[in-house]
Amino acid sequence: MLRLIKRRSKKAGLPPGTLVHIGEKKTEKVEITEINYNEEQYQEKEVTRIEECFPFKDKSTVTWININGIHQGGVIEEIGKHLGLHPLLLEDIMNTDQRPKMEDVGSYIFIVLKMLYHNEEENELEIEQVSLILGTNFIISFQEKKGDVFETIRVRIRTRKGRVRTQGADYLAYALMDAIVDNYFVILEKIGGKIEDIEEKLVSDPTPETLQTIHNLKRDMMFLRRSVWPLREIISGLERTGSPLFEKSTGIYLRDVYDHTIQVIDTVETFRDMVTGMLDIYLSSISNKMNEVMKVLTIIATIFIPLTFIAGIYGMNFKYMPELEWHWGYFAALFIMVIVGAIMLVYFRRKKWL
Amino acid sequence: MLRLIKRRSKKAGLPPGTLVHIGEKKTEKVEITEINYNEEQYQEKEVTRIEECFPFKDKSTVTWININGIHQGGVIEEIGKHLGLHPLLLEDIMNTDQRPKMEDVGSYIFIVLKMLYHNEEENELEIEQVSLILGTNFIISFQEKKGDVFETIRVRIRTRKGRVRTQGADYLAYALMDAIVDNYFVILEKIGGKIEDIEEKLVSDPTPETLQTIHNLKRDMMFLRRSVWPLREIISGLERTGSPLFEKSTGIYLRDVYDHTIQVIDTVETFRDMVTGMLDIYLSSISNKMNEVMKVLTIIATIFIPLTFIAGIYGMNFKYMPELEWHWGYFAALFIMVIVGAIMLVYFRRKKWL
Amino acid sequence: MLRLIKRRSKKAGLPPGTLVHIGEKKTEKVEITEINYNEEQYQEKEVTRIEECFPFKDKSTVTWININGIHQGGVIEEIGKHLGLHPLLLEDIMNTDQRPKMEDVGSYIFIVLKMLYHNEEENELEIEQVSLILGTNFIISFQEKKGDVFETIRVRIRTRKGRVRTQGADYLAYALMDAIVDNYFVILEKIGGKIEDIEEKLVSDPTPETLQTIHNLKRDMMFLRRSVWPLREIISGLERTGSPLFEKSTGIYLRDVYDHTIQVIDTVETFRDMVTGMLDIYLSSISNKMNEVMKVLTIIATIFIPLTFIAGIYGMNFKYMPELEWHWGYFAALFIMVIVGAIMLVYFRRKKWL
Amino acid sequence: MLRLIKRRSKKAGLPPGTLVHIGEKKTEKVEITEINYNEEQYQEKEVTRIEECFPFKDKSTVTWININGIHQGGVIEEIGKHLGLHPLLLEDIMNTDQRPKMEDVGSYIFIVLKMLYHNEEENELEIEQVSLILGTNFIISFQEKKGDVFETIRVRIRTRKGRVRTQGADYLAYALMDAIVDNYFVILEKIGGKIEDIEEKLVSDPTPETLQTIHNLKRDMMFLRRSVWPLREIISGLERTGSPLFEKSTGIYLRDVYDHTIQVIDTVETFRDMVTGMLDIYLSSISNKMNEVMKVLTIIATIFIPLTFIAGIYGMNFKYMPELEWHWGYFAALFIMVIVGAIMLVYFRRKKWL
Amino acid sequence: MLRLIKRRSKKAGLPPGTLVHIGEKKTEKVEITEINYNEEQYQEKEVTRIEECFPFKDKSTVTWININGIHQGGVIEEIGKHLGLHPLLLEDIMNTDQRPKMEDVGSYIFIVLKMLYHNEEENELEIEQVSLILGTNFIISFQEKKGDVFETIRVRIRTRKGRVRTQGADYLAYALMDAIVDNYFVILEKIGGKIEDIEEKLVSDPTPETLQTIHNLKRDMMFLRRSVWPLREIISGLERTGSPLFEKSTGIYLRDVYDHTIQVIDTVETFRDMVTGMLDIYLSSISNKMNEVMKVLTIIATIFIPLTFIAGIYGMNFKYMPELEWHWGYFAALFIMVIVGAIMLVYFRRKKWL
Repeated sequence: MLRLIKRRSKKAGLPPGTLVHIGEKKTEKVEITEINYNEEQYQEKEVTRIEECFPFKDKSTVTWININGIHQGGVIEEIGKHLGLHPLLLEDIMNTDQRPKMEDVGSYIFIVLKMLYHNEEENELEIEQVSLILGTNFIISFQEKKGDVFETIRVRIRTRKGRVRTQGADYLAYALMDAIVDNYFVILEKIGGKIEDIEEKLVSDPTPETLQTIHNLKRDMMFLRRSVWPLREIISGLERTGSPLFEKSTGIYLRDVYDHTIQVIDTVETFRDMVTGMLDIYLSSISNKMNEVMKVLTIIATIFIPLTFIAGIYGMNFKYMPELEWHWGYFAALFIMVIVGAIMLVYFRRKKWL
Repeated sequence: MLRLIKRRSKKAGLPPGTLVHIGEKKTEKVEITEINYNEEQYQEKEVTRIEECFPFKDKSTVTWININGIHQGGVIEEIGKHLGLHPLLLEDIMNTDQRPKMEDVGSYIFIVLKMLYHNEEENELEIEQVSLILGTNFIISFQEKKGDVFETIRVRIRTRKGRVRTQGADYLAYALMDAIVDNYFVILEKIGGKIEDIEEKLVSDPTPETLQTIHNLKRDMMFLRRSVWPLREIISGLERTGSPLFEKSTGIYLRDVYDHTIQVIDTVETFRDMVTGMLDIYLSSISNKMNEVMKVLTIIATIFIPLTFIAGIYGMNFKYMPELEWHWGYFAALFIMVIVGAIMLVYFRRKKWL
Repeated sequence: MLRLIKRRSKKAGLPPGTLVHIGEKKTEKVEITEINYNEEQYQEKEVTRIEECFPFKDKSTVTWININGIHQGGVIEEIGKHLGLHPLLLEDIMNTDQRPKMEDVGSYIFIVLKMLYHNEEENELEIEQVSLILGTNFIISFQEKKGDVFETIRVRIRTRKGRVRTQGADYLAYALMDAIVDNYFVILEKIGGKIEDIEEKLVSDPTPETLQTIHNLKRDMMFLRRSVWPLREIISGLERTGSPLFEKSTGIYLRDVYDHTIQVIDTVETFRDMVTGMLDIYLSSISNKMNEVMKVLTIIATIFIPLTFIAGIYGMNFKYMPELEWHWGYFAALFIMVIVGAIMLVYFRRKKWL
Repeated sequence: MLRLIKRRSKKAGLPPGTLVHIGEKKTEKVEITEINYNEEQYQEKEVTRIEECFPFKDKSTVTWININGIHQGGVIEEIGKHLGLHPLLLEDIMNTDQRPKMEDVGSYIFIVLKMLYHNEEENELEIEQVSLILGTNFIISFQEKKGDVFETIRVRIRTRKGRVRTQGADYLAYALMDAIVDNYFVILEKIGGKIEDIEEKLVSDPTPETLQTIHNLKRDMMFLRRSVWPLREIISGLERTGSPLFEKSTGIYLRDVYDHTIQVIDTVETFRDMVTGMLDIYLSSISNKMNEVMKVLTIIATIFIPLTFIAGIYGMNFKYMPELEWHWGYFAALFIMVIVGAIMLVYFRRKKWL
Repeated sequence: MLRLIKRRSKKAGLPPGTLVHIGEKKTEKVEITEINYNEEQYQEKEVTRIEECFPFKDKSTVTWININGIHQGGVIEEIGKHLGLHPLLLEDIMNTDQRPKMEDVGSYIFIVLKMLYHNEEENELEIEQVSLILGTNFIISFQEKKGDVFETIRVRIRTRKGRVRTQGADYLAYALMDAIVDNYFVILEKIGGKIEDIEEKLVSDPTPETLQTIHNLKRDMMFLRRSVWPLREIISGLERTGSPLFEKSTGIYLRDVYDHTIQVIDTVETFRDMVTGMLDIYLSSISNKMNEVMKVLTIIATIFIPLTFIAGIYGMNFKYMPELEWHWGYFAALFIMVIVGAIMLVYFRRKKWL
């Protein structure tokens, strides 16, 4: 399950700017890929040392350097030194507990986002942190492990599909963010499906497992919210920042992804409402079931307790009990019992318990 | 029932601006109608190819092109090309999961709204997306299927009722929005009726079906909210946009429809409060009923259990039990039982359980 | 009971500005009264045709035309034509489902308010819509039926009490609004009284009727809120509007009525809190009662069930049961029963159930 | 107990500015005290007619006139006439249901505050309204009855303790407000103590009285909130008003009392959270207790019901029942009963009910 | 346990600016340490009289004076006099109930913060107030007792680790605040651990102790919130204040600590949601358990009550009961009992109670 909070304490006391990885290590080897493209040409290579990528600055093509694995301070420090980035920013890249944020540092724009996966095997959410550094004609992206959400963009670049090859690095930044937000819809569909599944069982057959599922959904929603809400500020911030790194024509794309973010937030809030409502329904259903159990008990008990009492009376061993001597006494007793039972049944029917 | 979220995942990974229809296909054939009018003349025709409508731009009359069915990318792309619309806007038209929104793109104003119907047969809400493109002297409207909310406006145009024939395309846009908002009141009346129906049954006769109905009402309300809240921003946005497409004299009409929107929102919020309150009442009623059941059980059980015990004592087979030999023993036992029962009854009356 | 929503659907589809009365018809005949006054003179007359009132415009005295009954479109249309009012405003006057609002149309200020009554016979709230048109030296007020809240103002005008005779039409407008807001306090007193009544019964003697009353109070509060909240914006709007219709010296009066509105809102919110709290208390009390019922049942049952079992044992008909033959067997059995019962009682006392 | 709302209805219909006392009359005689001081001199006298105080205006010393008892319109009208105050302000002084507020009328600043006491005898909150009029070198304060919160300030003035003798009337106004706010902390300490008392009993021994106390605390908190929240705006208003009546050097004192107000609000909100939480705990504890009662009943009943049934079987009088004839039949039956009972006990232990 | 409110009443009535210690005395002796450093040199000494520290003002090195123990007014007054601080600020230092705040007094910046510890022995939160006075080249910090959160900074200064030796007093102020905020993460980890512990037990094994723990967590969260929320304004205030005491280059560090504060707040709010949700789960689990108890009772009772009744019938002593005479009567009765029991079991299985 997703941890509520990551072990950050190992960092307490260290001077700010110290590069310590916070979070689970999700990959062993750090992998660096460099993609170079413009409208005409396209080149993709795997590099082993980050320094190999540095010449990109002088090229006019758009360069996208993707780094899988953020647990090694060395690579990140190298990049930081080369680009003149503040140590605090580098620290944020390595801290997977970082809140999504955007910082415009003049020559670069620094963005931290959360990518969400649905782990099919464990049937639970997974979160991965993605950091982007957007420069004049390059993007550096940091991922926790080899992911696949960006793969579609790589395909589009390779196959010249869409606009990406004709646009600059800002469009690529948009495309990456768009891919992440689009993926939220996939997650939401999954959760929506789960909610609809539970909803049906809720009234008909509520079990303690339903309660557990509702609780887990609530938890997932909490993580979604924490990932999505800051996104809103980030993207509207990008729009308003007026940074020369973002061309004006990219504005409409940002607005579009902003729109999607609002849609995601709306849906998350609706789901939250649904899930909260489901808990109420669950509790009511439990109450209803208990009520029914009580009714059955009460009906059986209140019918038979008086009858048993009558039987008890004539089971007494007093010497002088005139009824016992009567020839029809036994049948009279049975008859009285039937009458009493019938009266009870009528009473219950009038009370609408039957 | 309304789906919580539509299958948007088929789009994940496609480049932005790709025209993919998201949502259920509600009609088979795409139908295109063109209405041309000004104060003097009026013309209405059905067209088969969208290109036939394009000459409207050069006419001085107001043109209203209505398209039923938005699942075919071709028609929408054609229009987009002709008017020079951004692919992202066209994408929004085809995505029925789009949040209501308004965009002022200079030469056009683009509006997405949600039309709500009450499906009488299934007794549930239905949502249809309506997109409007407002240009200098024309409106293009996109609907998911042949609807009837706009019919009254067509009648008004044909019969010259109201102001619509003497005004420009902006008034027509207002009239369409007004028709949609007016229809919300019809929905609210329906829901209000349902709420009042349930309210009466709530205390007298709460059943698990009541719970289900409350839950469904809550759900309907959620969809209503999601459709109505953004409307508020849209219309106040239209007022503030200062677009030359909207004449100043239309301002008072926008303010009126804004007023109605606020009224709708107010009512939706009141209904939400009502429905939440109803759940509490439901739970209390269930508790009350259970309490009553318990009381009956307790009264019967606590009266007869001691009596049965007394009968049990004199049913014992001990050799030496002096009472059994007494001549009046049996009647004494009966008398004691009556006394014990009476004491119990008095006790319950004092406790106000009877 | 107050309807949640009024039948507005009969209007759906009609062109905007069509004068249709929405709401219950509360009076048969439309009555028109005209009051003319200034510091020196005073004149009051009933008129039958609205046209008789129109010469007021040229007089320097303050004129107050009051119209009881808003279901006849004719009168309202006549006034609208004479004053050059927009049809949409006239529509608002006739729509009793209109939200309270204020519109500054330059030469006039248009205000819609809600008057609340407490119907003593039915013991429920009643709402009446009041619309005001304030012009340079006149006020036209529209009421649904002959009301009495404004009577005190008429008396003040007749008897020269207070400032009203020495001031202009803007002061009269203030006085009318003040009368409406003052009346809210009367309603609040009534509701406050009801709340305090219920509060006392709540812990001592909660019944399902209490629940119903709480529910009704909640409902009343909802209507109050919907009437009062918009009032706040209306009055602060009047202060800020800077209309020449309002003299500067009337500002302090507006601020005073604004103050009262805040006070009303504060009280309504406090009442809401109270009523919500009362529901919790009600539920707890029901729980407590049930707990007590359960305890009695449990005590009686757990004492007598084991005793009856013992009696049952010695009621068995086995041939060889040595105890039955003992001379003191019966008394030994009784003794054991007393011991068992006593142990149970001690246990319950230790559990604090007795 | 504090009334939810005061009888304001006697005022409905009277012209605005009519001086009518609203609230309980808390003192019989109106007492007027005048204190005159500057750094060198100090004079304190009781006056019987308010006119005696009027010469203070011409003196250069700071004058503090305190009036205990606000139910006599005459005194207040007199002051109003002398200072040229608007009748609406005078009305506010006499209306003890007035919301705390501040009005800067140019030559004076008018402040209404709420003083809270804890009535030890009745163990409940009491509210007293205090109005202040701050002029160039004087303050007039109105209290409902002879209070003691201001006594410490009088002592400081008499004994030259603190800064008050060296400062102007604005500092005195601050000192009075500070005394009122400081007193809120005393009330909060009391309530905090009560909360901590209840908290301990809550889980161990919840009784209906606990519920009543929680309810009362909630109610007290509501009154506190209504007194304290407006205070925040009042004091920040005083800071921002830029009135020449407040010297710049007093600003830091206002900021300090503002700080305290925020602290009070914070604490009130925390207490509200606590009390709400306590209700939940109370309900859970009740549930827990009921659960325990149910368990005892169930254990006793489910153990003995089958045993009694077995006894019942062998109590039947059939002619041919082979077991009855067996020599060890009785002991076999007892043995079976012991076995059945033991199985039940094991079952309950496995269910963790024992 | 943390007190809800501190005894502040001893101060009520004293003139503002009186130095009275509010809160628990946590240390006996006041300890004063002075640290002097710049890039080249470093000096640390313990002083006994605060006057020894005063020459620091003339030095160019950064001076950090730390005072453990704030219960002695003398030391604080001395510092106040030397630096010309307002008595109200000195009062805030000694009042441990002070809300976190920041005040820019021109030549100094005054900051009050809350340090949180987790007392391992008592397993509860502890709060300590820390006040900072930041001047041109010095910082004076006040702590309630000898703490250890700042120790890491002292070590960094001594060992020249990080940037602290090369920067001014503003960086030191940042470092101190950062240490405090970093420590919040340690607390949050602890609480997060506790929450996850309880979560697991919640459904499987809810006990009243769980309820108590949830309640305590809620309480802790409340204290955290009160410490953390104001921090946000403080740090954003420091950023916006534009004080020359803060160099521009320190801005990025402030932004970083602001970021962490937001993260802490986010986590606290998430935890609050979790804990609230846990209470719901707890209540549902209790309900579920009760339901199960009821079911067992009902099953046993409803099976055996009719059987016992049948046994009771044939235990009657009527003279003429034909069944008793039958040879197979006994076995027929047993057979009927088995049938009745079986029907019951089938019924329960159909009801899904088994």
